[in-house]
Amino acid sequence: MPVPAALRLDPVGKSLTSAQKAALDAAWKDGVATTLLSTTLAASGHPGGSLSCLHLMLTLYGASNMTPENVHAEDRDVFIVSNGHISPGVYSTLAAFGFINHDDVRIGFRRAGSAFAGHVETKVPGVEWNTGNLGQGLSAGVGAAMARKLRGHDAWTYVLMGDGEQQKGQISEARRFASKFGLNKLVAIVDRNFLQIGGDTNQVMPQNVDAEFAAAGWNVLTVDGHDWDAIYATYTKIRRGEVANPAQPTCIIAKTTMGKGVKFMENSAHFHGTAASDAQLKEAFQALGIPDRLDELRKARATTKPWAGLEEKVHPLPALDNGTAIVRTASTDCRSAYGDVLEDLAKRNNPAGKPPKVVAVSNDLEGSCKMSGFRKAAPHAFLEGGIQEQNNAVVAGRLAREGFLSFFSTFGVFGVCETYNNQRLNDINHAGVKIVCTHLGLDVGEDGPTHQNIDYVGLLRGTFGFEIYLPVDPNQTDHVVRYCARTAGNQFVGMGRSKMPPMAKPDGTPFFDASYVFRPGKMDVYREGTDVAVITMGAAAVYAIAGAALAASRGISVRVLFSPSIRPFDREAVGAAARLKGILTVEDHSVNTGLGQLVAETVGDLGLKTRLKRLGVANYASSGPSTDVFAEQGMSPENIARELERLAKG
Amino acid sequence: MPVPAALRLDPVGKSLTSAQKAALDAAWKDGVATTLLSTTLAASGHPGGSLSCLHLMLTLYGASNMTPENVHAEDRDVFIVSNGHISPGVYSTLAAFGFINHDDVRIGFRRAGSAFAGHVETKVPGVEWNTGNLGQGLSAGVGAAMARKLRGHDAWTYVLMGDGEQQKGQISEARRFASKFGLNKLVAIVDRNFLQIGGDTNQVMPQNVDAEFAAAGWNVLTVDGHDWDAIYATYTKIRRGEVANPAQPTCIIAKTTMGKGVKFMENSAHFHGTAASDAQLKEAFQALGIPDRLDELRKARATTKPWAGLEEKVHPLPALDNGTAIVRTASTDCRSAYGDVLEDLAKRNNPAGKPPKVVAVSNDLEGSCKMSGFRKAAPHAFLEGGIQEQNNAVVAGRLAREGFLSFFSTFGVFGVCETYNNQRLNDINHAGVKIVCTHLGLDVGEDGPTHQNIDYVGLLRGTFGFEIYLPVDPNQTDHVVRYCARTAGNQFVGMGRSKMPPMAKPDGTPFFDASYVFRPGKMDVYREGTDVAVITMGAAAVYAIAGAALAASRGISVRVLFSPSIRPFDREAVGAAARLKGILTVEDHSVNTGLGQLVAETVGDLGLKTRLKRLGVANYASSGPSTDVFAEQGMSPENIARELERLAKG
Repeated sequence: MPVPAALRLDPVGKSLTSAQKAALDAAWKDGVATTLLSTTLAASGHPGGSLSCLHLMLTLYGASNMTPENVHAEDRDVFIVSNGHISPGVYSTLAAFGFINHDDVRIGFRRAGSAFAGHVETKVPGVEWNTGNLGQGLSAGVGAAMARKLRGHDAWTYVLMGDGEQQKGQISEARRFASKFGLNKLVAIVDRNFLQIGGDTNQVMPQNVDAEFAAAGWNVLTVDGHDWDAIYATYTKIRRGEVANPAQPTCIIAKTTMGKGVKFMENSAHFHGTAASDAQLKEAFQALGIPDRLDELRKARATTKPWAGLEEKVHPLPALDNGTAIVRTASTDCRSAYGDVLEDLAKRNNPAGKPPKVVAVSNDLEGSCKMSGFRKAAPHAFLEGGIQEQNNAVVAGRLAREGFLSFFSTFGVFGVCETYNNQRLNDINHAGVKIVCTHLGLDVGEDGPTHQNIDYVGLLRGTFGFEIYLPVDPNQTDHVVRYCARTAGNQFVGMGRSKMPPMAKPDGTPFFDASYVFRPGKMDVYREGTDVAVITMGAAAVYAIAGAALAASRGISVRVLFSPSIRPFDREAVGAAARLKGILTVEDHSVNTGLGQLVAETVGDLGLKTRLKRLGVANYASSGPSTDVFAEQGMSPENIARELERLAKG
Repeated sequence: MPVPAALRLDPVGKSLTSAQKAALDAAWKDGVATTLLSTTLAASGHPGGSLSCLHLMLTLYGASNMTPENVHAEDRDVFIVSNGHISPGVYSTLAAFGFINHDDVRIGFRRAGSAFAGHVETKVPGVEWNTGNLGQGLSAGVGAAMARKLRGHDAWTYVLMGDGEQQKGQISEARRFASKFGLNKLVAIVDRNFLQIGGDTNQVMPQNVDAEFAAAGWNVLTVDGHDWDAIYATYTKIRRGEVANPAQPTCIIAKTTMGKGVKFMENSAHFHGTAASDAQLKEAFQALGIPDRLDELRKARATTKPWAGLEEKVHPLPALDNGTAIVRTASTDCRSAYGDVLEDLAKRNNPAGKPPKVVAVSNDLEGSCKMSGFRKAAPHAFLEGGIQEQNNAVVAGRLAREGFLSFFSTFGVFGVCETYNNQRLNDINHAGVKIVCTHLGLDVGEDGPTHQNIDYVGLLRGTFGFEIYLPVDPNQTDHVVRYCARTAGNQFVGMGRSKMPPMAKPDGTPFFDASYVFRPGKMDVYREGTDVAVITMGAAAVYAIAGAALAASRGISVRVLFSPSIRPFDREAVGAAARLKGILTVEDHSVNTGLGQLVAETVGDLGLKTRLKRLGVANYASSGPSTDVFAEQGMSPENIARELERLAKG
């Protein structure tokens, strides 16, 4: 269905014509039909909030630069729906503007395999971010607005949110980030219908939304969210810069009515998440003069899958100069190697005066994470987000999705534990973000159990997309980070805090030398051996090799395997090791969910049997120097040697 | 060392005597000595913030009801340190008030195994909550204040926070919760020194802290944080109720200087997290007239472990009437059974007009989580925290630690994924909270991947303390929830959304009947069989039994095992099953980190070998009816039967 010309509005105009309002009215009525038909036919979904937002969305698409033709253009306007459950309303709007067809939504909504999911998904053209878990969208919008600012595009970013959703703490973080960076082309729209699933927002959790946005330095406007003229005037006023502080972002508090336009749904929290019955739908359609096609469409649902061809478009990485790995011979820490690569990437790809290709998001740990070289080389591409990891993780994810090579760095406990759900949602969004965490595992200095991220493998394996890399020394870190810089996808790279001599060959030269090539899913044979194998990763490797050396000095032939790649994992190397007298795993990770468990699982999957001893973290550790804490968890070189001897002796 | 009488101040007095100020001065000087000695001897730690807060803490302990004698009294005042890294300052204050000894801290600080950890831990008497990850303390304080309010104690709760920390979103949630419940005996103290690890807070992340607290309805006062008179007057004014709105909590913005009193540390972000050198310490001590005992104490560090006897005190559950499990014969959902138990517990233990023993924290999903019966039976014990899961999880944890039987309920994705780090910290705190999550796994209706919590086992096994239970039907849910209600410790109980007929014996009577006793770490043999075994849990059980029945109808003898207890786990039952021709696991959880992996690991640990096929979630699933989504992930009864046949045929 062609989009009526009258729906295309002037983004900076002052008023609507009657033809334009008539076109909006017609689009609204189609949208009501789609919202009700899709939810009633699925017997589930969220009609109330959809109707609350429909006027706002239709006017927005009319008065901004978002079309089926420019959905992948870098300079397009962006609309992010944070309250992803109002998907029927979103699909209705996209259908009005030619992105998709009304009937496909009505037929395909909430069916297994369909792109027309209960919460918006990016398989549908025009949907910019998969949401559903509340409080995420503003951070994604901050990322989108930041991308446009970095590239110098005169494009706007809009984020629609629910009002119950305003309770989420992450929104306060996003507000501050937007304000700090002066993202004045970012507009937040709050669907203020005063209802959330549990009822009156003032009863469930009273909140002064206006004052909170104002406290963060935003412009705050209020509008009747069902009045075409008022909505249009508000949008265009903002685009003309006619706000109190044009250098800052703007929040529109839209006074709305849940279920607007369908009498029995209006102001009913029940219809937040409940579909109308057939009879109710017929009643509503009759009142609005919408033809009833319930039976016809119900039949089509049983026989048609109208979502064919709607597939996720995963964005490629930008073309970059990745430089060449440096071979270090002196003692240093892995995070300095990471810092070297970051700085090198900045110098090669972010020339002054041009939009950067590589961005780095910091969480108030610039020094600890060795990001200062990057900051100095490319200050415009260094984004210090403060102690707001949840927001910052999503900002980094969105920047990646916008086509930047995007690094996110902090300590492991903040980059994985604290932000697990944000990273999971980055993964569902195919963001392609590069999480590089320092101070991982037990090697966090004397910070103690709250800071010990000993569950990074278990958590990240809970996602399906993240590759997981744990380089064992600074030279391998350099290789791994450069690998991630040239490879699309979500990746995690973890490392400890301590300095160490580079891993060396028997002749004393660096093990990871100029000829080394990092291959995901491959272990490194650090030392060959025929009695037993020790498999290790990351910061635990120095303990494992010390223990193996001790065992070797006592006559045990130990194969020492580094497993810097946890996903993908080297099943073949495990299979070969299982043919020895035993395998010892050494990791600064919970023995319940880490490398040892992965080895156990692999041995079983291969139909083999072996004697396996898993050394690792068996309970919350204490606060002390790393060596002492490793020893406390049974990973002193002496204990490792003892376990190897025990396995070798059978 | 006895506490000088002059340090005990009148909590509602108007001014300090000169003797009192002299006593505070002396305590301050001892505290500076302890702060510097402990950090310099450990060569790590956070002296800057400790000195920033020392005047505030010493005055607070003087002017409130916190003594070594009342550390476990329900009606004591509580002081929670959210910026846990200022532990040297905290230990200094506790030593001044006789909880511990200065020298023990100086000798024991940041040593492996010591109670005097880098971030405060509750092993030290007077420390109320293990913190370190920022943004947690205010929520714990809300829980403590709520506990006192519920019990009708006229006791105060204080929470000290850093100013960089104010950036954490969770604090905005805690502010609102405190305001909603009128926690007017809660006082937040912000150490406003305008420095965080990355430097000037106004550079790292500008924030209007005052306006944010005011927007949430708090009273906001400002004080010079190094002026004994001003600090004392502020504290006592609040206790006298002399604030703008005495019905609401109060925030004190304390203007402070990082490193106060040690010239080279003052206003230096470097000393946020760096110890003074020996020479610097000597310089500081000389200026302050403190005797230098560096060498003596360094020797003692090498030979003494002064933390003996400092052990965590885990609080028992209150004595409760747990009632008796109900046997259901009609179709229902597990969450209704949970709701029944909650309501029963409320009726039995929370009589009107008395302080409740059982509390339930809701996250705007009261209806979905079936908590309405509890709310109606005990409205005063039902705490609706809104869409603020991170805060609410900590509030529930703190309430448990205060001796309530404390339930926290929401969908799995919010109670595990979104709040993983809060639950991890609850675990480190031995909180003893009962997390009951509905809408777990794939059985979340048509909400799609953002709402599918398919990693609950993998995540919770990343903690060391949480017991993990996945009952297979409503009757077993009843038993499991009552088990948790009478058993101390952190427990997780998960369930899906759908209705189902109760599991039945071959004769059609309920499988979990009146004679059933739930035993953690034991599988239920639902059907005996001799060819193969299927092991399942939670919402996947209905699919597993349908598949097993189909396979049985084709002549395969299938042992059907329910594993409602994941931690502890029934290793013996796995060992026995491994002796059959094969094991099939069926779970609505990632196959990478769930039940199947645990079975694989167990088989290996037992030194056995088996043919194991793991059915489960292999990638983010789609948005559709549960049956379709299970089928999409290979868990249709037909496919389950096929896999069983394959295993049986060898």
